[in-house]
Amino acid sequence: MSALHPSLPAPSVGLVGFGAFGRLIARHLAPHARLTIHDPYLPAGLIAAQAGPEAVAADLRRVAACPVVILATPVTRLDEAVRALAPHLRPGTLVVDVGSVKTGPAAILAAGLPADVEILATHPLFGPQSAGDGIRGLKIAVCPIRGRGAFRAAAFLRRGLGLDVILTTPEAHDRAMASVQGLTHLIAKVLVAMEPLPTRMTTRSFDLLMQAVGMVRDDAPDVFHAIERANPHAAQVRQRFFALAGQLDAELAGEAVPAAPVRLAS
Amino acid sequence: MSALHPSLPAPSVGLVGFGAFGRLIARHLAPHARLTIHDPYLPAGLIAAQAGPEAVAADLRRVAACPVVILATPVTRLDEAVRALAPHLRPGTLVVDVGSVKTGPAAILAAGLPADVEILATHPLFGPQSAGDGIRGLKIAVCPIRGRGAFRAAAFLRRGLGLDVILTTPEAHDRAMASVQGLTHLIAKVLVAMEPLPTRMTTRSFDLLMQAVGMVRDDAPDVFHAIERANPHAAQVRQRFFALAGQLDAELAGEAVPAAPVRLAS
Repeated sequence: MSALHPSLPAPSVGLVGFGAFGRLIARHLAPHARLTIHDPYLPAGLIAAQAGPEAVAADLRRVAACPVVILATPVTRLDEAVRALAPHLRPGTLVVDVGSVKTGPAAILAAGLPADVEILATHPLFGPQSAGDGIRGLKIAVCPIRGRGAFRAAAFLRRGLGLDVILTTPEAHDRAMASVQGLTHLIAKVLVAMEPLPTRMTTRSFDLLMQAVGMVRDDAPDVFHAIERANPHAAQVRQRFFALAGQLDAELAGEAVPAAPVRLAS
Repeated sequence: MSALHPSLPAPSVGLVGFGAFGRLIARHLAPHARLTIHDPYLPAGLIAAQAGPEAVAADLRRVAACPVVILATPVTRLDEAVRALAPHLRPGTLVVDVGSVKTGPAAILAAGLPADVEILATHPLFGPQSAGDGIRGLKIAVCPIRGRGAFRAAAFLRRGLGLDVILTTPEAHDRAMASVQGLTHLIAKVLVAMEPLPTRMTTRSFDLLMQAVGMVRDDAPDVFHAIERANPHAAQVRQRFFALAGQLDAELAGEAVPAAPVRLAS
């Protein structure tokens, strides 16, 4: 794209959804693409004011006319966005989503988009907080679903944006994220509910814990929903966490001080 | 002490207990003091081999003759160490402990040591892992219990070792640590039991979480015991954590996808 091939005009990219993550995408794609942005829940004037001089706000039809369309909608509204978009897409268009789960969204995209439209399901493993110092070196999970455009896009993510591209499947992604995000957000939610917690008399490991909490505490409620409810494996991970925690609590509540070290039976 | 007053001979410091934390103390005090070390569970030859050229291994009587004696024993063995040490201490000696809880140990020290012996209860808020890059700037909780020697020692910890000295009481310390260490070690114990967890497809916040786990996972079992059982407030913090987690789980397990964002009722 433009930064990679300075002689070519910047490609046109459509963006549906201009929430926290849509704005992050717009900021990092602006040097590489001409962006056309639509958000069904935001007035075009507000989008235009925040999107920078290189981007334009437009209706869904104009966004759908771009050769690449990125869906940055909540996972719960992906179905609705796909239905609205599908009739306007041209053959060969590459549609990309960026949600925190992949099995369900990949199925929605595959079922709801015309057969001649290419599909790339992605999950940038960072958010507005963790991308505060830029996105180079950060990880993105990439699941090519349909067509060759997915591989060109992955190459751009790697070389154009400097991301650490992890090629995977929706199923493998959701299994890993049920632990990675499921546990992080679960623990963060509980620790936030326990506040105020000490800030001065702290250990380095507690500081790291609270730094992790700080990175996800302002995530949109929909992100938490996607991670804990839309991920088909999250409930199982939660149950395992609670079972092990309960077991540990029972051991600690035992009256006798054990001669042997306190152990968590597995 | 020596580094602060190069013209004076290095003061003599006795150390009881040569486990992981005792060795950490010996390493950082060696440039400032002549160390005499005793561990009732380790042969003197082994201590001498590991303690460096500036330190000597000795029996409890010689350790007790030092003007400053540091107890680096497990919290569960503090009572035993105090009883063994007490008959040999000289008037004006400063006895310092370094355990992870302070209410119980401070009471043991105050009750078990002669009235003419000064007492400083401390808790370095770091361990062998988090002190890997040195201890300057790290935190230490300091509770003066008896005598003026405690304040001279606190001044040395600040100026001689560069520690961030937090002056507090055993009660305030244990309240804060019930959350700080209680939660960190509880979460770490459960996450370690859930391993293997993903290492490649991870978020930055999950990486921070696992870094926190890494700092405490190799702590001696006795540290976990002190934090979760000897701290009088730890059980209450655990119960609050489990209650909030259970509430969150119940909300997530609810069948209806809420129209409003998932909220954790407080």
